[in-house]
Amino acid sequence: MLTAPDLRICFAGDSYVAGTGDPACLGWVGRVTAAAVDRGHRLTAYNLGVRGETSCQVADRLGRELAPRLSAGDDHRVVLAFGVNDTVLVDGRVRVPPTASTEALLRAVDAARPARVLVVGPPAVDDEAQNGRLHSLGEFFAAACADQGVPYVDTFDATVADSTWRREVREGDGFHPGTAGYAALAGVVEAPFLAWLATT
Amino acid sequence: MLTAPDLRICFAGDSYVAGTGDPACLGWVGRVTAAAVDRGHRLTAYNLGVRGETSCQVADRLGRELAPRLSAGDDHRVVLAFGVNDTVLVDGRVRVPPTASTEALLRAVDAARPARVLVVGPPAVDDEAQNGRLHSLGEFFAAACADQGVPYVDTFDATVADSTWRREVREGDGFHPGTAGYAALAGVVEAPFLAWLATT
Repeated sequence: MLTAPDLRICFAGDSYVAGTGDPACLGWVGRVTAAAVDRGHRLTAYNLGVRGETSCQVADRLGRELAPRLSAGDDHRVVLAFGVNDTVLVDGRVRVPPTASTEALLRAVDAARPARVLVVGPPAVDDEAQNGRLHSLGEFFAAACADQGVPYVDTFDATVADSTWRREVREGDGFHPGTAGYAALAGVVEAPFLAWLATT
Repeated sequence: MLTAPDLRICFAGDSYVAGTGDPACLGWVGRVTAAAVDRGHRLTAYNLGVRGETSCQVADRLGRELAPRLSAGDDHRVVLAFGVNDTVLVDGRVRVPPTASTEALLRAVDAARPARVLVVGPPAVDDEAQNGRLHSLGEFFAAACADQGVPYVDTFDATVADSTWRREVREGDGFHPGTAGYAALAGVVEAPFLAWLATT
């Protein structure tokens, strides 16, 4: 590129966005950001991942946290990534049912606009029943994104079948991988993320 | 430690907190956090650095951004680090005079409580007149922190005399270093940061 635009990107979501469990303190967000910088993008990344949050909680705080971060620069982007906490059972019921998760996703997309949005779906965990719910939630999210014309990156199929991801999650807290798992997840997201950055 | 507490730390401040200019996407915050994890701390770090913000702007958003991040865990901490933007001249006047910067610092300390607070002072830039103002602002901050019983880490004296820091800042945008400079700044902060984490 001749004159790289001054990109400001907010990554909003849950503990996977925050990189919980990665002793290298990069997570997938740090890795895909470094990959973009390495390719010449002039980019400021803000990590707005908060542990334990559902889609609704992220959507609730999104607008007020984006405002100070997207007030400068000349290309504003928002990456949304959540869903695992929605599918956790509390007293036998999911914290957020998939229709409500999808409504929250659409609310978050609205809060992010006019910034361009990319949605990264939830990865697999170490519980097959919850994985079934995550697979289903990913389909809800993919359909909603297609309807909105927002690009969607599925991470479930790749992580559920990735032996490194599965082993680190199992040996960790049942949810979060370590450095190798986050590198694997970054590998899933990197190509569609870079392709999205290249769109104008 | 036998049972490591579940530490939640927010780093609130400006572009130096965000790690602007570091192609490794770690900045000094990622590096001191990784050092703490390496020493056995069970720690979730949230980076709330925003480019261009003065002390007043950080203090204004602090309370609402800390709330969702310090609602879980059993040891809450806040690191405050700002000041360089306060000392930038606009139409011949500093954006924020040192007495107002100090009032904003005290307001931020209040917003952070009851979390334990550490203040990291502003580093040197590539402009000697501004460096004079930064040295002076650091003295205001140090005195206010001493008065409040809040630990203060000076970074000015070390960075103004660090040839790697000075060269990377000069060859960069005049304010931000690259990877080696951030590693040097992390080296200044790491020991007092780890000592502060060890206090109960």
